[in-house]
Amino acid sequence: MPQIDLNSDVGESFGSYTLGDDAAIFRSVSSANVACGFHGGDPSIIAQTCRDAVAAGVTVGAHVSYRDLVGFGRRFLDCSPTELADDVLYQIGGLEAMARSSGTAVRYVKPHGALYNTIVHHTAHARAVVDAVTAFNPELPLLLLPGSVAAGIAADQGLRVVTEAFADRAYTPAGTLVSRREAGAVLEDEAEVARRMVRLATEGTLTAVDGTDLRMEAASICVHSDTPGAVAMAAAVRAGLEDAGIRIGAFV
Amino acid sequence: MPQIDLNSDVGESFGSYTLGDDAAIFRSVSSANVACGFHGGDPSIIAQTCRDAVAAGVTVGAHVSYRDLVGFGRRFLDCSPTELADDVLYQIGGLEAMARSSGTAVRYVKPHGALYNTIVHHTAHARAVVDAVTAFNPELPLLLLPGSVAAGIAADQGLRVVTEAFADRAYTPAGTLVSRREAGAVLEDEAEVARRMVRLATEGTLTAVDGTDLRMEAASICVHSDTPGAVAMAAAVRAGLEDAGIRIGAFV
Amino acid sequence: MPQIDLNSDVGESFGSYTLGDDAAIFRSVSSANVACGFHGGDPSIIAQTCRDAVAAGVTVGAHVSYRDLVGFGRRFLDCSPTELADDVLYQIGGLEAMARSSGTAVRYVKPHGALYNTIVHHTAHARAVVDAVTAFNPELPLLLLPGSVAAGIAADQGLRVVTEAFADRAYTPAGTLVSRREAGAVLEDEAEVARRMVRLATEGTLTAVDGTDLRMEAASICVHSDTPGAVAMAAAVRAGLEDAGIRIGAFV
Amino acid sequence: MPQIDLNSDVGESFGSYTLGDDAAIFRSVSSANVACGFHGGDPSIIAQTCRDAVAAGVTVGAHVSYRDLVGFGRRFLDCSPTELADDVLYQIGGLEAMARSSGTAVRYVKPHGALYNTIVHHTAHARAVVDAVTAFNPELPLLLLPGSVAAGIAADQGLRVVTEAFADRAYTPAGTLVSRREAGAVLEDEAEVARRMVRLATEGTLTAVDGTDLRMEAASICVHSDTPGAVAMAAAVRAGLEDAGIRIGAFV
Repeated sequence: MPQIDLNSDVGESFGSYTLGDDAAIFRSVSSANVACGFHGGDPSIIAQTCRDAVAAGVTVGAHVSYRDLVGFGRRFLDCSPTELADDVLYQIGGLEAMARSSGTAVRYVKPHGALYNTIVHHTAHARAVVDAVTAFNPELPLLLLPGSVAAGIAADQGLRVVTEAFADRAYTPAGTLVSRREAGAVLEDEAEVARRMVRLATEGTLTAVDGTDLRMEAASICVHSDTPGAVAMAAAVRAGLEDAGIRIGAFV
Repeated sequence: MPQIDLNSDVGESFGSYTLGDDAAIFRSVSSANVACGFHGGDPSIIAQTCRDAVAAGVTVGAHVSYRDLVGFGRRFLDCSPTELADDVLYQIGGLEAMARSSGTAVRYVKPHGALYNTIVHHTAHARAVVDAVTAFNPELPLLLLPGSVAAGIAADQGLRVVTEAFADRAYTPAGTLVSRREAGAVLEDEAEVARRMVRLATEGTLTAVDGTDLRMEAASICVHSDTPGAVAMAAAVRAGLEDAGIRIGAFV
Repeated sequence: MPQIDLNSDVGESFGSYTLGDDAAIFRSVSSANVACGFHGGDPSIIAQTCRDAVAAGVTVGAHVSYRDLVGFGRRFLDCSPTELADDVLYQIGGLEAMARSSGTAVRYVKPHGALYNTIVHHTAHARAVVDAVTAFNPELPLLLLPGSVAAGIAADQGLRVVTEAFADRAYTPAGTLVSRREAGAVLEDEAEVARRMVRLATEGTLTAVDGTDLRMEAASICVHSDTPGAVAMAAAVRAGLEDAGIRIGAFV
Repeated sequence: MPQIDLNSDVGESFGSYTLGDDAAIFRSVSSANVACGFHGGDPSIIAQTCRDAVAAGVTVGAHVSYRDLVGFGRRFLDCSPTELADDVLYQIGGLEAMARSSGTAVRYVKPHGALYNTIVHHTAHARAVVDAVTAFNPELPLLLLPGSVAAGIAADQGLRVVTEAFADRAYTPAGTLVSRREAGAVLEDEAEVARRMVRLATEGTLTAVDGTDLRMEAASICVHSDTPGAVAMAAAVRAGLEDAGIRIGAFV
């Protein structure tokens, strides 16, 4: 029986500010990228999110970020590699304490926002993230975009790399995401997205924007948590996969 | 051979801001109360402090605080017990990751500043601190003022409580600190302070401000790190204790 | 033609976090308590809010707070009076720059959350707020709860004090708010609330929880912006007042 | 009688953290770049700095920065131009309130750290800074590096641009700073630096690293405030200029 992971971002609320419908998302995903306090999430939000993940049987990952609350971690910050590695390690540690006290643990690490995108090409920051994960626990996999510089560095250092596809995004024939600035970059038809993900999970293939077939190795599918329609889309993807006989399960 | 611990606050620098002479303090103490980022300390400072502690053979403790960087944790914050417990747990976790990657671990918890003083009498905040330590690791001792409400709650919940004396502070006959607002509250004569600490370590006795003897159980002596003369005072206390045949060693 | 002011809290979003439906609230109120960055509001949110206030013809006030983003300014912080006065002055100045560049200015000051409640009884903090407003511009009125210590200090120092009533709150016969912990503290019937506010605006009278009449001088009515039903309640209060021939207008 | 301005960074302390010896620097300079809270400076520090500037007869400028306290504003942050303009405007406003309450006002704006360096070449961020200053007060000059992109944009928009030289830095024949990574980039001989600054103030000429003469229009000389020897260097530059019959005075 084929299996794939569904991951989504949770725990991004902060104090009185609520972001996303985590309770609904937990019903669809198998892995939760939990904010660690640097782009979202405060200790009480994080603790509650870990308890909710345990209750839902969802695996906890550390969603680490540049330190940028007001920018929600979406802005590149030209910190030194040492600062970045230390910031990442501290975030994983903060989350680990909350996870442990909830009866689970941090099982993987996924960089967030600008950090996720930066380490596709920025060697020093990619290495810093890899160093931090290695320092914390070299058994933890990193969840990354396929083909990123970080994936290569991580593999070289003996970390397990798990790559993901984005459920609702169009891909170029080269396997990269179609820029959000272009029409058709974001797919909104739930049935179409579900069909695409079934094909990805069973054949390792996606249809690119030009209609050609694209090979894509992805052990996990990322579904959004805070866009309009996100909850319905996540549920549709899950239902589509299950209807096709695919088991939804964490990659770790 | 009698033994006592010397503890001091370190890792309180932040970014470009330096506070205290940690390198010098590490030469005198056996336990380091390491700031965890909420009143001082950023991840890189914390990481460096952990490495320095390991190099100096000094035990690492978590110096947890209200979230108040600009106030350096010296201002009471009327947070909910849940918020406080979560904040404390997150701080311990952040430090633990840095300590582990440096080859050590968090061995005890000492509340900082306003939190330290508040849980002498504030039951809900005391309980929150005890709950956080218990959630993280019920084997970790709490380093506290003797007679505090927190000490009672911690003991009731099965935590080990270690109490400390302040090297350079005068005590009332009731065993409480003479208020800093009163003349003579802070002792500046290094030789006198060293003699007092030798007596404390060997007899469990301190001379109170009125000249009477005071029983004081203290497994640790707190020396300051960031006041004028702090480094010299710490060195004098250590030398005085060692000259009297007392071993300086961590309580855990 | 009788007139009264309607005020509400706006500009409390932060970065990617949205709080309240400010656009809707601006259609009902005459005065906007704009967050200044210490409990909510970042510079871009504040700037946009000022532009929206100008477009809607709504007067801008500074909604100053303890420095506590994660607690949304709802937690007492035991800062020194000097720290508080400086924090308040800085917040007013930050907002003033945004307001000026939008074609308006800060026209009054209203303390937020825990600060609002604290200066009902805390003389030193009340004095700090009054000092900050006086230092910025002694012509600015302070919007306060009737009977607060701050109101007395402000009046003594020559500041204009404007007092407000809460549209959806029950009052004791003594003129204080019924505690939220008691049943019936929050009124949810829009028609009833509108009738009460008409009576307040025309007769200066409110019915207390025991059915007796209560004299209440209030030049402004506070309506909520971020509770369920807040927008509808604000609109109902405005419509009720206008239907009764009362003009809605800022007090300054 | 020739005149030149001496400027330096002050008000960069934060809470319990002290940076620089502002009191000593105030004895040498005519213009103070006052931190506004985003890279250093909290409201109480800023207020005290403004009072000290007034007492010393020193002109106050706004030292605006990316929002990055832990990085001390020394790290590029890829914020949007709107975010940056709003952040800069808010900072000027916060400082203006403190300056006004001290009997002075913000008289110029100087970007700090990474922002200062970025707008030498980054058009969008340069424009954002210019927009913010224009929005606040188009009469305020911007203090910048000669030849920066920001200077061109500012001049185009009708802002007055004042350029500065760095007292203790070596220059290339092209008029740019010798990189700190190269030997000889920082000049440490007080007498030599003073002689260079006299020549700059009287002839508009500096000797470049290759011994050739370099034309440099600079109405202000920047002296450091927080490096070892900074206070002595500032005093030496001032004394050298005054001994040469040059008046030290603010450019505005």
